[in-house]
Amino acid sequence: MNYQGFFKSALDDLRDQGNYRVFADLERHCGDFPHATSRTGETSDVTIWCSNDYLGMGQHPKVLAAMHEALDRCGAGAGGTRNISGTTHDHVLLEAELADLHAKEDALLFTSGYVSNWAALGTLAGRIPDCLVLSDALNHASMIEGIRHSKAERMIWKHNDLADLEAKLAAQPLERPKLIAFESVYSMDGDIAPIKEICDLADKYNAMTYLDEVHAVGLYGPRGGGIAEREGLMDRLTVIEGTLGKAYGVVGGYIAASRELCDFVRSFASGFIFTTALPPAVAAGAAASIRHLKDSVEERTAQQDKVAQVRARLDAIGIPHVENPSHIIPVMVGDPHKCKFISDMLLQEHGIYIQPINYPTVPKGTERLRITPSPVHSAEDIDQLIGALEDLWGQCQLARMPLAAQ
Amino acid sequence: MNYQGFFKSALDDLRDQGNYRVFADLERHCGDFPHATSRTGETSDVTIWCSNDYLGMGQHPKVLAAMHEALDRCGAGAGGTRNISGTTHDHVLLEAELADLHAKEDALLFTSGYVSNWAALGTLAGRIPDCLVLSDALNHASMIEGIRHSKAERMIWKHNDLADLEAKLAAQPLERPKLIAFESVYSMDGDIAPIKEICDLADKYNAMTYLDEVHAVGLYGPRGGGIAEREGLMDRLTVIEGTLGKAYGVVGGYIAASRELCDFVRSFASGFIFTTALPPAVAAGAAASIRHLKDSVEERTAQQDKVAQVRARLDAIGIPHVENPSHIIPVMVGDPHKCKFISDMLLQEHGIYIQPINYPTVPKGTERLRITPSPVHSAEDIDQLIGALEDLWGQCQLARMPLAAQ
Repeated sequence: MNYQGFFKSALDDLRDQGNYRVFADLERHCGDFPHATSRTGETSDVTIWCSNDYLGMGQHPKVLAAMHEALDRCGAGAGGTRNISGTTHDHVLLEAELADLHAKEDALLFTSGYVSNWAALGTLAGRIPDCLVLSDALNHASMIEGIRHSKAERMIWKHNDLADLEAKLAAQPLERPKLIAFESVYSMDGDIAPIKEICDLADKYNAMTYLDEVHAVGLYGPRGGGIAEREGLMDRLTVIEGTLGKAYGVVGGYIAASRELCDFVRSFASGFIFTTALPPAVAAGAAASIRHLKDSVEERTAQQDKVAQVRARLDAIGIPHVENPSHIIPVMVGDPHKCKFISDMLLQEHGIYIQPINYPTVPKGTERLRITPSPVHSAEDIDQLIGALEDLWGQCQLARMPLAAQ
Repeated sequence: MNYQGFFKSALDDLRDQGNYRVFADLERHCGDFPHATSRTGETSDVTIWCSNDYLGMGQHPKVLAAMHEALDRCGAGAGGTRNISGTTHDHVLLEAELADLHAKEDALLFTSGYVSNWAALGTLAGRIPDCLVLSDALNHASMIEGIRHSKAERMIWKHNDLADLEAKLAAQPLERPKLIAFESVYSMDGDIAPIKEICDLADKYNAMTYLDEVHAVGLYGPRGGGIAEREGLMDRLTVIEGTLGKAYGVVGGYIAASRELCDFVRSFASGFIFTTALPPAVAAGAAASIRHLKDSVEERTAQQDKVAQVRARLDAIGIPHVENPSHIIPVMVGDPHKCKFISDMLLQEHGIYIQPINYPTVPKGTERLRITPSPVHSAEDIDQLIGALEDLWGQCQLARMPLAAQ
């Protein structure tokens, strides 16, 4: 066995398919985000249009002040797992903040959103005897891995398809434990699940519900509790899972649920138990961000306004993008090489950074540019983006929507 | 199915077995660590004796300065996955620092040590066709989960037993891909693997080696490269895995290996690809910590001195602890209820915090107090610890070593 040869050959295959990923090396400018310095090749100024720091909270003065203060008060790391000296008061306060955000009895922090899905789904589905997991077909990799980890029986229902979900639920004994796992805002298409109707089915068929709101918390609902808060449904969900690394601008993941459910996951999840806790400063920064967005709607309103502006401008120049009711604007390209080429041209010629989204993040043939306007993008930033896309669409002879059809 | 009833009953079982975990709520005092405020019950002052911030680097001025600077320069979070806007220059610099630390071509950062083991082992063993994983019996939960995740065939060899490992290797075809997964310092017993001999077997039988050095990096070797550096063996290991959350005092995990191996894991590991990158400030703090410990041996020498002092004082009062060649001092209790009782008494009556280590962290019947002396524990701290243990050993009528035998 030639191990190095095997690795090289697998990487060559990726390159041939156009799916080899080159990471853009960036230096964000705190206070001037979405502007950054690109250090890929020659140093240049860029505007970031693909960040999940959706509201620019990663540079909010309250978040930074809380992190500086906690660094000076507690130091850098937590120094241990949550059980072995790693629970600081900042973790306790953040979990209380999260439970309050979702009007649940308790919340449990994880080192990332990925780990929260993997550990919570893996533990719930794995430990509840004979549990059946009903998983939306477009669930995130972390949910898929968690369900796989549980070794529970899994049924995949067609994306956002209530009839398919109900058919699968109805075919099972009422008393059998069931867990419906789905997302509110789907990251790559930006569509939104019919949460109320899924909860109705869960009630009818005695199923638990597990809702991933990572692309919604901070962004929707009067206090940023997500789509479920906006629609008055938080109390109907068994588990709400979220992240501190997107709209809240820091890092980390969590679940919010009943006291017993959180305690159960806390007590049995390997991915929670055997890992160093997040730094106290991260917890303090995330708590400050959540508190701010509970009170302030300004960022959410401004974001929605910027999203509407970008959509309208794309429509005006006939660049096709997926219609959806969220803040995510997918501009479809449909070819990995072309997608990477446009992204490279945007960076090199226009100082615009939008990472190509290729397989395995999206299915082959649906490669895209995923644009995420934020409150911190200026009118000039939007002008520059639209001008660059118009220019490139011309150069690349990519399809435009017939303008008459708009 | 009564879900809440199921959770309650599982938690009650844990309580009955003495394995229900109560997290100590602490506030570390930056600059005065290992001293902290306990907020469990009434607020009180405590000295932490069970932290994995082994060298006190979590409060080192260089680490804190680097984190403050990066916060002000880049903001709080990375804002995306490594591929989608989340790679900052601080991540690139940290990976270069790690590759240099282990004299490897490249390194790859993960959000935690747990995730690095899970993702790297899962990807390597899962993607190399017909790979056989030879896993030490006492490997950490994260390695076990990674191997399980890979679905590769796994053989468990007796802990640190070269004859057993060789028998298992010799029974396989030479050309079959094999991966030997093990640790250098085992966290709960503090014993150390025969790394050279394992590498010799790997060479003889054409196996890759994967060494977890999380309890050794920063602590051993002239530049803190771990046991493999101390023994001049780094170039013989295929993969060295480490953490930024213990001796380096921050958070995060990594692998160091050949350029192609790192690129392979980077390109295929779900747990690397689909997760938000660590905050730039975390990367900057960790890099500062590594750089400092590459040059400074003062912390390592002081730690070893404190460990020797505590061992000698325990011997002097006949309190049994596991002999081992590392910095970890396991004081065996052997009963979960008693272990928790002693820990509670230490906290309540003596202001000493040592978390009881019970199942599932250690096997049932081997419950223990795990003491980790650090350079920042003073002579007074040691006096207080020894006095408290002597007092409690008397009260609890726990076995002492016959003094004559020492």
